[in-house]
Amino acid sequence: YNIKAEKLNYSDKHPAFHSTSLSAAKLLKASGLNPVVLEARDRVGGRTFTVRNKETKWVDLGGAYIGPTQNRILRLAKEYDVKTYKVNEQESLVHYVNGKSYPFSGSFPPMWNPIVVMDFNNLFRTMDEMGQEIPKEAPWRAPHAEEWDKMSMQQLLEKICWTSTVRRFATLFVNVNVTSEPHEVSALWFLWYVKQCGGTMRIFSTTNGGQERKFVGGSSQISECMAKELGDRVKLHSPVYRIDQSGDVVVVETLDNSLCSCSQARYVIVATPPSLNLKMHFKPELPPLRNQLINRVPMGSVIKCMVYYKENFWRKKGYCGTMVIEEEGAPIGLTLDDTKPDGTVPCIMGLKRICEIYSRVLGSEEALHPVHYEEKNWCEEEYSGGCYTAYFPPGILTQFGRVLREPVGRLYFAGTETATEWSGYMEGAVQAGERAAREVLCAMGKIHQSQIWQTEPESKDVPALPFITSFWERNLPSVGGFLRFVGVSSVLSTAAAAAGLLAYRKGLLPRS
Amino acid sequence: YNIKAEKLNYSDKHPAFHSTSLSAAKLLKASGLNPVVLEARDRVGGRTFTVRNKETKWVDLGGAYIGPTQNRILRLAKEYDVKTYKVNEQESLVHYVNGKSYPFSGSFPPMWNPIVVMDFNNLFRTMDEMGQEIPKEAPWRAPHAEEWDKMSMQQLLEKICWTSTVRRFATLFVNVNVTSEPHEVSALWFLWYVKQCGGTMRIFSTTNGGQERKFVGGSSQISECMAKELGDRVKLHSPVYRIDQSGDVVVVETLDNSLCSCSQARYVIVATPPSLNLKMHFKPELPPLRNQLINRVPMGSVIKCMVYYKENFWRKKGYCGTMVIEEEGAPIGLTLDDTKPDGTVPCIMGLKRICEIYSRVLGSEEALHPVHYEEKNWCEEEYSGGCYTAYFPPGILTQFGRVLREPVGRLYFAGTETATEWSGYMEGAVQAGERAAREVLCAMGKIHQSQIWQTEPESKDVPALPFITSFWERNLPSVGGFLRFVGVSSVLSTAAAAAGLLAYRKGLLPRS
Repeated sequence: YNIKAEKLNYSDKHPAFHSTSLSAAKLLKASGLNPVVLEARDRVGGRTFTVRNKETKWVDLGGAYIGPTQNRILRLAKEYDVKTYKVNEQESLVHYVNGKSYPFSGSFPPMWNPIVVMDFNNLFRTMDEMGQEIPKEAPWRAPHAEEWDKMSMQQLLEKICWTSTVRRFATLFVNVNVTSEPHEVSALWFLWYVKQCGGTMRIFSTTNGGQERKFVGGSSQISECMAKELGDRVKLHSPVYRIDQSGDVVVVETLDNSLCSCSQARYVIVATPPSLNLKMHFKPELPPLRNQLINRVPMGSVIKCMVYYKENFWRKKGYCGTMVIEEEGAPIGLTLDDTKPDGTVPCIMGLKRICEIYSRVLGSEEALHPVHYEEKNWCEEEYSGGCYTAYFPPGILTQFGRVLREPVGRLYFAGTETATEWSGYMEGAVQAGERAAREVLCAMGKIHQSQIWQTEPESKDVPALPFITSFWERNLPSVGGFLRFVGVSSVLSTAAAAAGLLAYRKGLLPRS
Repeated sequence: YNIKAEKLNYSDKHPAFHSTSLSAAKLLKASGLNPVVLEARDRVGGRTFTVRNKETKWVDLGGAYIGPTQNRILRLAKEYDVKTYKVNEQESLVHYVNGKSYPFSGSFPPMWNPIVVMDFNNLFRTMDEMGQEIPKEAPWRAPHAEEWDKMSMQQLLEKICWTSTVRRFATLFVNVNVTSEPHEVSALWFLWYVKQCGGTMRIFSTTNGGQERKFVGGSSQISECMAKELGDRVKLHSPVYRIDQSGDVVVVETLDNSLCSCSQARYVIVATPPSLNLKMHFKPELPPLRNQLINRVPMGSVIKCMVYYKENFWRKKGYCGTMVIEEEGAPIGLTLDDTKPDGTVPCIMGLKRICEIYSRVLGSEEALHPVHYEEKNWCEEEYSGGCYTAYFPPGILTQFGRVLREPVGRLYFAGTETATEWSGYMEGAVQAGERAAREVLCAMGKIHQSQIWQTEPESKDVPALPFITSFWERNLPSVGGFLRFVGVSSVLSTAAAAAGLLAYRKGLLPRS
C-alpha cells in the first residue's frame, strides 16, 4: 500500500478492492512517475479474491459482480482482455416466504395483496425520491441531511411501511446490499448508498443491474494484470504501521518478515477502508475529525459461501438459481447461480450459510448433497475488517463525512469508500484510485484542479438500459394516502379506530 | 503499554485511564513477577491528565471526579496518601432553561408542571427499573437484550417521554454521561452503563454521586505514584504496533525514536480502549468477533474547558458553580466549580465551550472576563481516540459484547471499557487492570479461577449513602397511566382525540 513516484509515494496498505491502489499506481506510472505499492497481504486484489483449484476451476470468494454503468472497471477489463459473462437468469427466480416457494421473473418478487402492492411500490418509490435529494458527492448537504442521519434505516422503514410483509422484504434489501442490519445503519447513508449506485432497481437487479455479469476467470485478474504491469513496484507482505510526514519526505514504515523497512516518498495515497487507517501510527497525529471518523465507520459482516453440486438440478426444475429467501433467522437472504458460463461446475453462491435451506426452497433432496464447498469469512481478515464496505451508523455521516477524502498534508485518500459512484464496489475502487492519483498530479503541478474529477464514457459492450416505471408505479397511492382518500368523509369514530390501530401497529403505546 | 513479569508481559499501550495498566503491573509485581509497562505517550496517566502551571497550580484536563462506591481507586489514593476534597455545592445549583436561570438544590432540577413532574419521575424510575433487568457482567443476557439493543437511546426516549421538556433534559443526561448523542448509542448499552455506575442518581449526582470529590493535587498523581513504584519497568514513548504470539514467547514490537524495539513476554495484557487494538498488527490475526468488535465501538467526543476568574463571583451571588444548561445548540450542558479547596484559583469547569454562555446563566458581566483558560480536546489524541469512554451504537453489544474481555491465546484485555462497575471511570480502570492481572496469575497456576474476580471493601473515608426514594417517586403514575386512569370511563371520542394526538406527538404519521 504505497506508491512512490520518483520521490512520490502512494500508500494503500489493506486495499479496498485492491483495484483502488493499483489503478492509482497505473495512472501515475502512465504519467511518467515511479509509484510504489505497499500491500499488506501476500497477494494483490484486496476484497476481490479469486481462488483456482481443481474442484471449482476458479471461484470469486470476494467481490465478483459487475454491471452496466460500471464503466471504469469495464474499461480496465477490456484493456486486459478479461471477458464478462451474464449471470444465469434464463429460468425462473424463486421467492421463498412463509415456508413456500414462488417462482417469478423480473428484479423484485411480485406481491398480490393490493395493500401490500401499494406499500411495496410506495417504499421503493420513496427511497428513490429521497435519494434524488441527496448529492452523491456530498450527502451531508442534502436538505434533510441531519434529520435522516439521526434515524436508523429501521426507524425510516417503520415510518414508511404499513405492512410487515414489506418491512421484512426491506430488511432483506438492506442486508443484501450493505451486509448490515437496518437498525445499525443511518437512513441518510443507506439512501445515499443506493442512490450513488443508480437507485433501487439498478442496485438490486441482476439483468441490467449491479449483478448482471461476472468476469470469465475471476475478478482478481484485473488486479493481477495491473500488478504485472507495475512489476516490482508492488511490494507484497508489507503492512504499513507508520507514516511520518514531519520531515522533507514522507517516511512510510512497513512490517516485514525480517526487520522493519522504510520507504520514502513525496506523497502517499492511503487506500485502505477508513477504519484501517487505525492500523497506522501517524506523525503528526491525524486531525481530530478524521481521527473520530475512522473510529466510527465499521465494515459490514459477510461470509460468502459457494456450494457445488454434481448436477445443475435447479435448472431442470425451471429455476435459474436466484433465490430471494425471507425467513426468520434464515442464514441466507439471496443466492445466485454460480455455474461456469459453459455450464460446467454447477454451483450456487449464497451470502452467509448453507445447504439445508436450499433444499427447502428448491424442493429438492439433491440440494442436501453438494460435492464441494468453498467459503470465505471476511470478518476474520485483519486487513479488511469485513466486507463489502464500511457502513455509517446513525449520526456519523453528517458530523464526520466531509473529511472522508480530505487530504492531510501529503496524504491523499482512496479506497472504494471514498467514491461517489458505485462506492462499495470494484467500480468505486477504480474511481477513487484514479481520482486520488490525479490529486497527487495536481499537487505536483502536472494537471489543473479541474481535471481531478473525470467522467467515464459508457462501455460499448455493457450498455445501460433505463428503468422504465409504469403509470401505476408512479401514481399508485401509498397505504396512508389510500386510507385518507377512503376515509376523508367518514365519521370521527372510524378515524379514531384507525388512529388507535396505527398507534398500536407502530408499537408505540408507551410503557406506563 | 506492556508489562513483563519474569517472562511475563503485560501490554497496555494507549491506556484507558492509565491506572488500568499500572494497577495490573502493581498487582503482578506484588505477586513476585517482573512486569513491563509499554506506554505510547510521553507520560503516564492516559485519559487522566494533570497539568501543573503558575496560573492554575494544578488542573485535571482529563478524568477527575470520584465518589462513593468507587472503592478501588479510593484504596489506591489512600495508599499513596493522595487526599480528596468535595466539589463545592454549598450554594445553589442553577438550572438554565428557556433563557432563564432557576436556582435549585439536590441532584436533579425540580419541575413544576404536574404533567412534567410525572413524566420526569417516570423516565428516571423506568431507566432504573430497566437497568435492574440487566446483568452488569453480561448485559447481552438481559431478558430484553435484543429488543433494547436494536433501539437507539433516542428511540427509547421517544417511547417513554410524553413531554418535550423531559425529552430535552434526558438528552442532556445522555450527553453529559457518555459524551455522545442519544441517536448514536444503543439503549441497552446506555441503560447498562447507568446501572453499573449505581443508577441514575449515583451517576448524575455531585453529593453522594460520581462527581462528589476530586483529588487534591490532581488525579494523575495515582498513576504517577504507581509508575514511581514500578520504576524503570515503565517504558514511555513506546507505542506498540505488533504483537506476535505465534512462537514460544509473545513478541511485542514498539515504535521508538531510534529503531524498532522488541519485548518478549509470556503473557500480554492489552489495556487500550477496544478500538485502539486496531493500532496493532496481530499474529495470528484476532478472531472474527473481536476483529468486528474493535471496529464498532468508537470513543465519545469531548473538549474539557476550564475558565479561570479573578474572583469567585458566582459564590457571592449565591451560586455554587454547578449549572445545568438546556439550550438548543448550547456548547455546554453541565458545569461544576473547579476552585481549589482552599478557595484560591477561582475556576469553572465545563464540558465543551465557553464563557459567553456562563455570563447569561449566571447573570454576571464578570463571566465575560476570565483571567486564564485551559482546554483539552480529547478528540485529537491518537492514543485515546476520544473521551471519556467507548460507546456502543445500536446492535453491537448483543452481537459482539461477549468477546470484550475474552482472552485471545496469551493476550488478556483490560481498560476501563472491560469493567463491570464504573466502567468508563478511573474506578473501572483499576477493576479491569487488577482482574486482568489475576487472569494472568491464574493462567500461570498461581491463583485459582475463583479468585480472579474480587469485591472491594467500602472506603471508610468516602462511605456511600443509599438514595431514598419517596412514596411519590415510587408511586406517581406515568403520564400515560394517568391519562388512562382519568380516561377509563370517557366516551370513545375522547380516546380518539387522545390517540390521534399521540400519533401526532410521536411524529409518526407516515409520509404521504
